Amino acid sequence: MGPDCGTYGAAVTSRSDAATLDAADPLRRFRDEFLVPDPDVVYLDGNSLGMPPRRTAERLASLVTGEWGTGLIGSWATWLDMPQRVGDRLAPLIGARAGEVVVHDSTTVNIFQLVHAGLTLRPERSVIAVDPGEFPTDRYVVEGIAASSAGSLTVRHGFDDLDDVAVALRSVVDYRTAEVVDVVTETARARAAGAMVVWDLSHAAGVVVVDLHAAGAELAVGCSYKFLNGGPGAPAWSYVASHLQAQLSQPIWGWFAQTDQFAMGPTFTPRPDIGRLLLGTPSILALAAAEEGIALSAEAGIDAIAVKASALTGFGIEVCDALGLATSTPRDPLRRGGHLNVLHHDARRLVPALAERKVITDFREPDVVRIGCSPLTTRYVDVYDGLAALAALAR
Amino acid sequence: MGPDCGTYGAAVTSRSDAATLDAADPLRRFRDEFLVPDPDVVYLDGNSLGMPPRRTAERLASLVTGEWGTGLIGSWATWLDMPQRVGDRLAPLIGARAGEVVVHDSTTVNIFQLVHAGLTLRPERSVIAVDPGEFPTDRYVVEGIAASSAGSLTVRHGFDDLDDVAVALRSVVDYRTAEVVDVVTETARARAAGAMVVWDLSHAAGVVVVDLHAAGAELAVGCSYKFLNGGPGAPAWSYVASHLQAQLSQPIWGWFAQTDQFAMGPTFTPRPDIGRLLLGTPSILALAAAEEGIALSAEAGIDAIAVKASALTGFGIEVCDALGLATSTPRDPLRRGGHLNVLHHDARRLVPALAERKVITDFREPDVVRIGCSPLTTRYVDVYDGLAALAALAR
Repeated sequence: MGPDCGTYGAAVTSRSDAATLDAADPLRRFRDEFLVPDPDVVYLDGNSLGMPPRRTAERLASLVTGEWGTGLIGSWATWLDMPQRVGDRLAPLIGARAGEVVVHDSTTVNIFQLVHAGLTLRPERSVIAVDPGEFPTDRYVVEGIAASSAGSLTVRHGFDDLDDVAVALRSVVDYRTAEVVDVVTETARARAAGAMVVWDLSHAAGVVVVDLHAAGAELAVGCSYKFLNGGPGAPAWSYVASHLQAQLSQPIWGWFAQTDQFAMGPTFTPRPDIGRLLLGTPSILALAAAEEGIALSAEAGIDAIAVKASALTGFGIEVCDALGLATSTPRDPLRRGGHLNVLHHDARRLVPALAERKVITDFREPDVVRIGCSPLTTRYVDVYDGLAALAALAR
Repeated sequence: MGPDCGTYGAAVTSRSDAATLDAADPLRRFRDEFLVPDPDVVYLDGNSLGMPPRRTAERLASLVTGEWGTGLIGSWATWLDMPQRVGDRLAPLIGARAGEVVVHDSTTVNIFQLVHAGLTLRPERSVIAVDPGEFPTDRYVVEGIAASSAGSLTVRHGFDDLDDVAVALRSVVDYRTAEVVDVVTETARARAAGAMVVWDLSHAAGVVVVDLHAAGAELAVGCSYKFLNGGPGAPAWSYVASHLQAQLSQPIWGWFAQTDQFAMGPTFTPRPDIGRLLLGTPSILALAAAEEGIALSAEAGIDAIAVKASALTGFGIEVCDALGLATSTPRDPLRRGGHLNVLHHDARRLVPALAERKVITDFREPDVVRIGCSPLTTRYVDVYDGLAALAALAR
């Protein structure tokens, strides 16, 4: 046990091990692409809000001065297709093809649209399935859809029985445990049962390998402010398999979805492509920031990112074991996403106490300290230092 | 007729008159607050996309480096209430009170929410009224709501008969003619008929005096990228009179509307205040830019802005008369907004031809050259030069 281990660790999880892993990290250079905070800040919440890419600061400055300030209204010629263009950059990260992803609005709105779209594809069914432990906005959106249906739709908790389910809304990665659902198997099971699935990749996109097309997934949504580093409240994205796009129907009809938008004709005739999900005028500032974040992940490549996520979280679990911290995050690297949880009855107090020591984590009800491992910015030493600080406070 | 009039004008509408009016303009200094384009660009489309405030460039830079880059996830403590805080800055510009406006999402989404909210307040009625010449997204949204109602709702064109109307969706300023609706009279007439009105102030906010509270208006929406200079695709806003907020219901249930949001409880219990209209995580970059634009208008004050809008458009109409250009924009200054139209059978060709000469206007179907007069940035010489160039091309 070397001096770097302090009083906690076994040799295999010492701080010097962490430093060695960082030195050998093939994605190491990506951290330099970001505006990193003070060196004494240990940021383990990149899965809630990724750090700002340096290019984002430059892009926003040139957007305001150049595209907006100089090009003025004429810049809409280059802005109009940004939701699809940024979607095309994101597509390879989630196993989608060009033309299958559009970046727009928020996860909440996009879930609303896609659950409705799924319902219209299964008009003879009336059940929406969602996990009772699902992230709140997913649960609330389906409850709202059912409540607005005048009794014609009901919400069921859980996915055991899909035989009468119209739409199942499911996260790929659990926001508390990081457990990964087998998208291939579960998509096939839903298809066999005749149910549509809306996959929520909010905690998966940009950190684990999800091949939507290979899995036969037809509808998916996600956000871009977590592992994709798109900025606070960055726009979400929607994926629709190409064969479904022309028949997709949802209740919010906006002018950006209109065929021949500027004809401003009397009748809504939605575009036949992914653009039919668009609503009102999208924020170009937000889209530009999302594009820069997504571009960095695309540059690193999802395979390399996922390998590092698995290694970081695996290292974190070993450190937890060594320091006596409890975690329920899966030990099978293929079954966990880009974060891990530490379970502690006093988690609510520990998270702000850690923040006072410049270790930034997240509290989740009821007893979770969530440790985010964002492969482009999180170092092994961050994981080590954060968990060591947590262990010291939790004693 | 002085030499500045060229071959067109009467003395009262010469270019030197325009320069004199600019020199006496009490809002003159505000143009310096913006990143103005080349001096030879005549920008008459600030009613589609306002120019960038200088402060916006600075604010975005400090937001990315400071709030996002240094504060990281902790900055959500200051970001969480931004939709309401920016709403409070906007409120005095539209005659709303603090706590009655929230800035979020897009006009399309917000119209969808408020029309639904109005419908739930008139459950015994089934008609939505909209003008057949209304801006497309307004028309499309109500068509979509009706199409999703399984036959229980119908759309009626026009507002002559409101006796069985549940919700009337109406623009305050017509996007082609600039004609202003009498909000006080029409709100009272709708109330007497038992109809709810959703007022769309997209072309009114930040350019004409609309006192929503005094008019008894209960529901309104608008955008912030036109006269409010919030940036391309800047978030929209919603107004709900305080007495209605606690009973407001709409079908998109998102976690930002939830009471005690981070408890992440099992049941959706929307906040009792204007925040219950929030949906998913809002874009902080877009909100910050909107705030800077709105703040400049608030600083100038809506009364001074409206006086200048009226003077600019009035001057424009006089120039049209002098140069032989046709306009159907109302001549009564109390009945027009912040733009004027020039009607020409060849408008579709004239707008790009003007753009080649660095005069930026907007084409609207079928025969409208739209001339935007944005009081914080448009000069009288811009109006003169733009119309003179148009007259020269239109001969």
